[in-house]
Amino acid sequence: MRKNHVIDLNDLSKEQWEHVVALATRISKDPQAYSSYCENKILATLFFEPSTRTQMSFQTAMLRLGGSVIGFDNPMNSSVSKGETLADTIHIVSGYADIIAMRHPVEGAALAGAQYSRCPVINAGDGGHLHPTQTLTDLVTLSNERGSLDNMTIGFCGDLKNGRTVHSLIKALCHYPNTTFVLISTNELTLPIRFKEIIEASGCSYREVYSLEEVIGSLDVLYMTRIQKERFASEELYEQQKNVYVLDQKKLDLARPDLKILHPLPRVDEITMEVDKDPRALYFKQARYGVYARMALIITLLESQSNDPILHGKETVHCCKNPNCVTNIETYLKNTTISSGTTEFCEYCDAPIELN
Amino acid sequence: MRKNHVIDLNDLSKEQWEHVVALATRISKDPQAYSSYCENKILATLFFEPSTRTQMSFQTAMLRLGGSVIGFDNPMNSSVSKGETLADTIHIVSGYADIIAMRHPVEGAALAGAQYSRCPVINAGDGGHLHPTQTLTDLVTLSNERGSLDNMTIGFCGDLKNGRTVHSLIKALCHYPNTTFVLISTNELTLPIRFKEIIEASGCSYREVYSLEEVIGSLDVLYMTRIQKERFASEELYEQQKNVYVLDQKKLDLARPDLKILHPLPRVDEITMEVDKDPRALYFKQARYGVYARMALIITLLESQSNDPILHGKETVHCCKNPNCVTNIETYLKNTTISSGTTEFCEYCDAPIELN
Amino acid sequence: MRKNHVIDLNDLSKEQWEHVVALATRISKDPQAYSSYCENKILATLFFEPSTRTQMSFQTAMLRLGGSVIGFDNPMNSSVSKGETLADTIHIVSGYADIIAMRHPVEGAALAGAQYSRCPVINAGDGGHLHPTQTLTDLVTLSNERGSLDNMTIGFCGDLKNGRTVHSLIKALCHYPNTTFVLISTNELTLPIRFKEIIEASGCSYREVYSLEEVIGSLDVLYMTRIQKERFASEELYEQQKNVYVLDQKKLDLARPDLKILHPLPRVDEITMEVDKDPRALYFKQARYGVYARMALIITLLESQSNDPILHGKETVHCCKNPNCVTNIETYLKNTTISSGTTEFCEYCDAPIELN
Repeated sequence: MRKNHVIDLNDLSKEQWEHVVALATRISKDPQAYSSYCENKILATLFFEPSTRTQMSFQTAMLRLGGSVIGFDNPMNSSVSKGETLADTIHIVSGYADIIAMRHPVEGAALAGAQYSRCPVINAGDGGHLHPTQTLTDLVTLSNERGSLDNMTIGFCGDLKNGRTVHSLIKALCHYPNTTFVLISTNELTLPIRFKEIIEASGCSYREVYSLEEVIGSLDVLYMTRIQKERFASEELYEQQKNVYVLDQKKLDLARPDLKILHPLPRVDEITMEVDKDPRALYFKQARYGVYARMALIITLLESQSNDPILHGKETVHCCKNPNCVTNIETYLKNTTISSGTTEFCEYCDAPIELN
Repeated sequence: MRKNHVIDLNDLSKEQWEHVVALATRISKDPQAYSSYCENKILATLFFEPSTRTQMSFQTAMLRLGGSVIGFDNPMNSSVSKGETLADTIHIVSGYADIIAMRHPVEGAALAGAQYSRCPVINAGDGGHLHPTQTLTDLVTLSNERGSLDNMTIGFCGDLKNGRTVHSLIKALCHYPNTTFVLISTNELTLPIRFKEIIEASGCSYREVYSLEEVIGSLDVLYMTRIQKERFASEELYEQQKNVYVLDQKKLDLARPDLKILHPLPRVDEITMEVDKDPRALYFKQARYGVYARMALIITLLESQSNDPILHGKETVHCCKNPNCVTNIETYLKNTTISSGTTEFCEYCDAPIELN
Repeated sequence: MRKNHVIDLNDLSKEQWEHVVALATRISKDPQAYSSYCENKILATLFFEPSTRTQMSFQTAMLRLGGSVIGFDNPMNSSVSKGETLADTIHIVSGYADIIAMRHPVEGAALAGAQYSRCPVINAGDGGHLHPTQTLTDLVTLSNERGSLDNMTIGFCGDLKNGRTVHSLIKALCHYPNTTFVLISTNELTLPIRFKEIIEASGCSYREVYSLEEVIGSLDVLYMTRIQKERFASEELYEQQKNVYVLDQKKLDLARPDLKILHPLPRVDEITMEVDKDPRALYFKQARYGVYARMALIITLLESQSNDPILHGKETVHCCKNPNCVTNIETYLKNTTISSGTTEFCEYCDAPIELN
């Protein structure tokens, strides 16, 4: 962990997140038993970009624990619009609230904010970078619906290049024995090489395929995501390929009777509505597990006495070249890098740093 | 009822709504006795179009019952803006909350949403179509302030053509013996014929007049509404007629000492501020009754075990021609119609369906 | 007081605000003891202009007292956008809530609204005019951190011409013996003459200086505020003067070891971040005192039985010439004036009224 914050699920050890998953499971079986746990506690939901779904899930989690909620969902209403730094906003709000869930359009913003907070910070999404409570939700869902996270053949279908929920779940599942990843996408949207290296290093395996139909029969779990139209290589390829990545009844007929279908939602048309009625469709249930996952995380962080440092990297004079990295916007931040092999990565946004 | 939802007050039997009115009356006499009724319960106020007043009334109702509230008031902040269907939004939020109050700019949206909800849905206004909790508020006010809903001479003044609160209250009052409706409007804004037919079929009576001044002395109740300037036939007619429909002290001097003046609010200038001090002006008190009405409705729906079907009509292949009908926007919906006499009406928006 | 409202802190007697300050101090020492004080009570935060910080502080205060909160932060979502008067909005909401905190872009709006409220109204800022809970926060901070408000040498640095928090705190501190005001600003942004007259009348003293560096060593308290770039007389003067009013480590090194640095926040760059770590920097702590101050004020007003009149002035036919005065926007308001010496001031916005 980074003190008692959750910035990246992969900051937690496997033991730590399994503790949260187990707690979420206990809560899901008897939520009433936890309904006074956060009495007199306040969660601040600081949404510097709107995301109603995630915000409502956090609010529900805190209210179900007997706590209450303050916050905003509109950056233009906040003091940010008066030129205040992220550091000051977090500093002040962490004097009002007992725990913060923070969403921000800029990569690394949650790690930046945590450094100035007097209370635990949960990353509720920082740009296209991380979204750890979605991954936690996925793990709670799989753990409950499948019993175990071992020996899983899981297909990821859609935009594997840009999907942060995909990347984060893959990293987490690499900690479990014998995971087989089936990566289903167009050639343009395949999983970035660094995640393939992580899979290989873990002893798990993967294969890449083009067609969902071809592999659906072999899967224990299918994790669907959306391909935005503009991500296809051309209008022609969009027209030609779009249906390959749509889950409909016809494809589902080829699947195992115990397939588990997940989706981070919102869904647009990558799963047809006829599939919703199938008992293998778990995505709405997954959204409900998301509340239990967030309840468990709030409880865990409020109890945490961690004294781990927030920054793990080493200080550097080199600036991150990613224009959407928080270090290029909140310029008072200490630049730090993490080494991996021969490469240095920005600790905030994970972009590689070129040393010259 | 349509399962345990309230889409249209007229879906409820007279007995059902009188139960709610009676409960609201008991609550109004001792609100403290109900202050823990909804402990650990969550109301979601999903306002796909803003209506602060109505949203605050629902929030107050839930908080006064000891419950809590999540929700949004800005469609652009919601997942809707990412292309999610109404069905998915309701499906997911109904997994977070125990009851939903939903406002939407599109006609029939609440009936559409209810079909995908795991919890009770209250229609808090769907386009210009229905607004059942306003009508319930009106009934609670009249019942408490007048003692009985029988033998009432009630004037409706203003825009009787477009006013959904007027239409709904007229339909409800047709269930009481000996109601006399005095319909006060310009020629262009008279009550639509189908509501006159409902009055006639009920055995109640109505008369249409042009001038408020002329009839105010005969009324037990005056229900004021606003005529929007653009609803007058011309600028000339607006200048000529506007004062005819303004309630001021001079007109009020002609009224009975026990007249009850109602208004759904907001009021612009159709009632002058001098009238506010008159004890016959009940519109601010009516807003407070609105909270009790919503408290009673929330309690009733959370207790309801109704297994009535949500759709009452028969399935059809004919599409509704109303461009603002939800079936033309959320195209996955089953089209259903309700017969009345020789005409078929869209079950969602009540527009007549032309069969060819 | 004006009934049980707080429009201007200077409406309260010194005894009254010292009661609130003392209560805030007791709360700060044992907040848990007050955590059920407002059970079943509702605060409405009516923010006709957004101010997330202030709104969150009020929300936190009410939640920490066990109460709950309704409200809005976006005037465009409110019935105001349908042409409703401020009077009607306040009238109706005060039928929902037990206490109102109201922010409005127009001067005098809180005094206007209070006249139509059934419950206590707290002014959370009315245009550039008043912001009494900030001043109360300042007093709670100084009283706690300094022990006493007597014999203080306090420097005000920045825009003393336009800063409403500066004006209000100066007026309050004039009630304490032997306050010395050190007024640090450019020539263009000096304290208006009427506040200097108040200081003189109180028996306190002031001196005006240009340079912060020159006087910082003599101060018990330094109250920093921001000078907006556009307030400088010219671009050249901005470039030349801006650093004179920035508090940095170098200037701080000249200050006493027990200096107290306050700032109403948000801060932009008038205090460098290096100063934050200095124990003399109290501005973040001050924001936390703001919650206790608001808790104390809510408790006090809910207990208040004051029957003081809301308007203290005498009715006049003269209209206020201030275009941003509420009387020129909400035209139904009674115009009243307060005499001071030979001049009449508008009771709402404090602008001088020219009699002809």
